[in-house]
Amino acid sequence: MTIVVKVGGAAGNALDPALDELANRTDYVLVHGGSDEVDRLGAALGRPAEYYTSPSGVVSRKSTPAHLEVVLLALSGAVQTRLVAGLTARGRTAVGLSGVDGRLLRAHRKQGVRAQVDGRVVRVEDDRSGILDSVDPTVLRLLMGAGIVPVVGPPAADARGELLNVDADRVAAAVAVALSAAALVLLTNVEGVRRTAEDPESLISRVARSEIDGVLALAGGRMKKKVLAAREALAGGVGSVVIASSQGKDPVARALAGSGTVFE
Amino acid sequence: MTIVVKVGGAAGNALDPALDELANRTDYVLVHGGSDEVDRLGAALGRPAEYYTSPSGVVSRKSTPAHLEVVLLALSGAVQTRLVAGLTARGRTAVGLSGVDGRLLRAHRKQGVRAQVDGRVVRVEDDRSGILDSVDPTVLRLLMGAGIVPVVGPPAADARGELLNVDADRVAAAVAVALSAAALVLLTNVEGVRRTAEDPESLISRVARSEIDGVLALAGGRMKKKVLAAREALAGGVGSVVIASSQGKDPVARALAGSGTVFE
Repeated sequence: MTIVVKVGGAAGNALDPALDELANRTDYVLVHGGSDEVDRLGAALGRPAEYYTSPSGVVSRKSTPAHLEVVLLALSGAVQTRLVAGLTARGRTAVGLSGVDGRLLRAHRKQGVRAQVDGRVVRVEDDRSGILDSVDPTVLRLLMGAGIVPVVGPPAADARGELLNVDADRVAAAVAVALSAAALVLLTNVEGVRRTAEDPESLISRVARSEIDGVLALAGGRMKKKVLAAREALAGGVGSVVIASSQGKDPVARALAGSGTVFE
Repeated sequence: MTIVVKVGGAAGNALDPALDELANRTDYVLVHGGSDEVDRLGAALGRPAEYYTSPSGVVSRKSTPAHLEVVLLALSGAVQTRLVAGLTARGRTAVGLSGVDGRLLRAHRKQGVRAQVDGRVVRVEDDRSGILDSVDPTVLRLLMGAGIVPVVGPPAADARGELLNVDADRVAAAVAVALSAAALVLLTNVEGVRRTAEDPESLISRVARSEIDGVLALAGGRMKKKVLAAREALAGGVGSVVIASSQGKDPVARALAGSGTVFE
């Protein structure tokens, strides 16, 4: 059985525990984001990221062409290489893939992206955000069949090879669906979904399918995207989805054993 | 039969003619450098590249850890993705690989790198230049067997996954040797090796094995690395090596037909 593990790139995420653990198995695809690296590199290049909040309350970066360049540099040039090198250093062979490699992540451009600004809804201009249409698992299967770990990150590409920014959690869900994965583990900088964002005691440990939309309404900001990803993965036939902490030893095994928030 | 084609990243190199042509075949590995992109990104990040000249006259960039980061961002994050996207846009499926992907390019750190400075020979400190030891063609064969074009660039990595800068022309030669390639085509911004660097009329069209060391003595700067690469490829059993112009239609077919400087 295949699993998909997504590691986060935001502040507070640990990477070494997951790499230490994942170096001992080959039954998975590793998916990554890298928001911290994108922010850092954008600042170093004098192109800080801009965010907008959609009318439904989801916070996203503006994907201008200049920003998409920064995303690509940060994800393919820094985060992905770090993960591949980290697995290699631990004895595991890996290959980094963006969505254009092997036509892995196919998207189309989001039309009419809108944002809330000062209570008004305005159009986001020149946005290169994509909506993920399909995952072609050919190259993933090819690599896994040879014992090589695929390490996958945004962006995706349209049919003409034009790059489009997509959310890494949604990528992880789509990859899990394409591989009929037994489980999707989304590691993050908190222990799971909380009923109240500021209260660590309010962790939700189990979410049945019928409850997901309710949890979606509770979750804010980036956690909302993870819950959306969980919903998409379950709807696509993935056995279970766990949102769990990246901190501490064996975070993947602990997540699969039921720590964090389990959607099933 | 397999061929290896290396495209240049320095000013004056054309990319579209090679991509237009290469989209019609699948019997090759595409290798790239990206010196222009490295310079551009280094400048944008306030980390301009520094060069040094070795006691034997070869011009190289200083590979400080900070510079190696820029190399990785520029090559894996920009140049490689552009090539993969360019082939994808033309209907061909490709996968980008740095040397750490699939443990493709194994190197060890160059010891005691020295430079000429004002006529004196001094040591280059904290250099992350690597000497290429071996190429593991497993992942190349895996991809080519599935009709997917491997697009390969520096850096290489040591056994512990530490990244080391290596020259792209030498990478191309080593890949060609590892694949027992019929030919290695090094596309560049001039028509081949000139007897006199400034004189386009002084193109050398044929170089026998016995003449390579003489041509090496004539070649300066970056062309010297291409001649070194040619020598290494021939010594490793590659059928022929052609250094030829990247400009104009079908540059690969023209090179294979004997335009440029042919080493055999």
